[in-house]
Amino acid sequence: MRWAMTRASSPLPRGAVIGMVGGGQLGRMTSMAAARLGYRTHILSDNPDDPAMDVAWRHTRLSSAEDAAAIAAFAAAVDVITFETENLPLPLLALLEAQPHCRPSAAVVRLCGDRAEEKRFLQAIGVPTAPWAPVATAEEIEAFRRQAGGRAIVKTCRSGYDGKGQMRVADATAAARAAEALAGKALIAEAVLDFTCEVSVVLARDVAGRIAAFDVTHNLHREGILRESRVPAPIAPEVAARALAAARRVAEGLDYVGIMALEMFVMPDGAVLANEIAPRPHNSGHWTMDACAASQFEQHVRAICGLPLADPTRHADAVMENLIGPEGAARWEELLAKPRCVPHWYGKAEARPGRKLGHATTLAPFGTGGHGPRGGSML
Amino acid sequence: MRWAMTRASSPLPRGAVIGMVGGGQLGRMTSMAAARLGYRTHILSDNPDDPAMDVAWRHTRLSSAEDAAAIAAFAAAVDVITFETENLPLPLLALLEAQPHCRPSAAVVRLCGDRAEEKRFLQAIGVPTAPWAPVATAEEIEAFRRQAGGRAIVKTCRSGYDGKGQMRVADATAAARAAEALAGKALIAEAVLDFTCEVSVVLARDVAGRIAAFDVTHNLHREGILRESRVPAPIAPEVAARALAAARRVAEGLDYVGIMALEMFVMPDGAVLANEIAPRPHNSGHWTMDACAASQFEQHVRAICGLPLADPTRHADAVMENLIGPEGAARWEELLAKPRCVPHWYGKAEARPGRKLGHATTLAPFGTGGHGPRGGSML
Repeated sequence: MRWAMTRASSPLPRGAVIGMVGGGQLGRMTSMAAARLGYRTHILSDNPDDPAMDVAWRHTRLSSAEDAAAIAAFAAAVDVITFETENLPLPLLALLEAQPHCRPSAAVVRLCGDRAEEKRFLQAIGVPTAPWAPVATAEEIEAFRRQAGGRAIVKTCRSGYDGKGQMRVADATAAARAAEALAGKALIAEAVLDFTCEVSVVLARDVAGRIAAFDVTHNLHREGILRESRVPAPIAPEVAARALAAARRVAEGLDYVGIMALEMFVMPDGAVLANEIAPRPHNSGHWTMDACAASQFEQHVRAICGLPLADPTRHADAVMENLIGPEGAARWEELLAKPRCVPHWYGKAEARPGRKLGHATTLAPFGTGGHGPRGGSML
Repeated sequence: MRWAMTRASSPLPRGAVIGMVGGGQLGRMTSMAAARLGYRTHILSDNPDDPAMDVAWRHTRLSSAEDAAAIAAFAAAVDVITFETENLPLPLLALLEAQPHCRPSAAVVRLCGDRAEEKRFLQAIGVPTAPWAPVATAEEIEAFRRQAGGRAIVKTCRSGYDGKGQMRVADATAAARAAEALAGKALIAEAVLDFTCEVSVVLARDVAGRIAAFDVTHNLHREGILRESRVPAPIAPEVAARALAAARRVAEGLDYVGIMALEMFVMPDGAVLANEIAPRPHNSGHWTMDACAASQFEQHVRAICGLPLADPTRHADAVMENLIGPEGAARWEELLAKPRCVPHWYGKAEARPGRKLGHATTLAPFGTGGHGPRGGSML
């Protein structure tokens, strides 16, 4: 830590270094936002050829999750530490918890990386979720499934993303299969909801507790992976207000600093149930890069560096589509030629199936994308 | 050159490397645009700590303008070579002219870096300029001044930018002083015009000759340095059409590939006189980063990599202001907090007076910034 963050709200000077745990596309896009504001990015990851390294300043190689020397060197070389993922090994998080200059804190990242801890936290602050329970055996899964109306999803508490570490269970045989396949891991079971749609709120909270939220986003998943995000979301203003209030409660409950996302289910009666907290920039906020003056990545940099948050107003309606695996890659040239479409490529070495390789946001004039709340909110 | 550019119009594959001659803010902003499209940037400059290196992938150090080994290594490591400045030493340009994969060509860059060559080219293609003449002695300067109506500007043919290498001459004593101060350099004298305003056209031309022009920009200079650029420009549609036609003629006359700018004077009778050609992204095009789906930097990358040009339509009116020297730096925090203002910092080590340290673009809803042409043009 080269400048002491003695006063929580004093901004980091230009030229300061942001330490980023993780070198994927979120670190890559954050690095570019950091550079635009005069900051440099130093990546901590196990691979010096990670996508972020095309545009980041320095790299520290982490040889294992217990590599205390690498973490100490990294922490000493940067002015603030932040994260592009919550799927981090516990020993690494424990070493980072000893560093005072993490934003958000490593403890918050650890909480969000554990589905059971996260659900307990949401319960504690009064943000409703789908019915859930910790489970360990086939019997417990089966009992939960019956109680939950016949269908459940079993999820590993840690290390799950993009549908990984999840199994759907609709009968006793499937319950037994899930227990066997996921044996040895801490698990939860969740009820399968007949929701109307999935939405998310991406918001930034600064060191003084001010919050700026982007408009509620409508998210379309397939096979557990986000495929498309749309603003405005097709929801009534009171539903949007409920979603924003839930996200605000989460951010305040965590004393959060930085950008975060809350994924939610909208139920037929207009209720909003929290699904997951992402303590980092989120795929459903990528549209902000092209439809707002300041993107989610810039908001994150502003928040963690003690700068004023930007106005989250958007100037366009937007549809963001992920480019996933070889089929996604095959669409690149079509998207380059599409009017009002802004393509983004992540520079990953391999186009493996199911891998997010890039995204493209198509803009439409503000207000033409249907009804719904719009314009962003300072909460 | 790792992929042969055998067919002029075949696109460079994602992951290809753009070689950039120069590591300043234009190289920096181009690097970020390149990364968004999946390309990596390799900088050739004398300083591995140049601003572009915060976000560029690799660097080759040039120890002198005759460093043939560095240029050969750089050229072999990249797939296309481009430029962020035309103010390059002639020996360096000569070495680059031997490289087949420069876009624009090194010969074009050399021409644009020499005021006399540039003016002769403009004359040859029928694009009018202010009256000018090559001069060498106090007598020649004085003769030109009298003939030009009493006032002239003497400029070095090479290495002038941001008002450097220029002297105004309003009498015989000043003519003698200019001849002495600039002795030993190739010089031209230009008439001082009573123009209405200064404008520029920033356009991209691709390998197949297609041209996409951003809207004509109104430029305000002080002490020879651009202070502010505004779109729309306060000019009549026929004046804008004249400016666009002149820029197109220049691009076609040079068989140009990439982004270029033509700076022009608008005269009280509506005539448009060419001033300077910039064979690179241009300060007066920075507003495109925030008011268009694709910026001038992205257009440059698209053009030199053989990708389709993006639609140059803008979605907002814009005022771009440069942040120059310590006074500019002092405004940073105010601009960070200004709504609809997008600040950009260049990461330069020192805030010397007269140095461009960053810029900020303030957006206003499309059509509110006054009359004038708008929307960009595919020419």
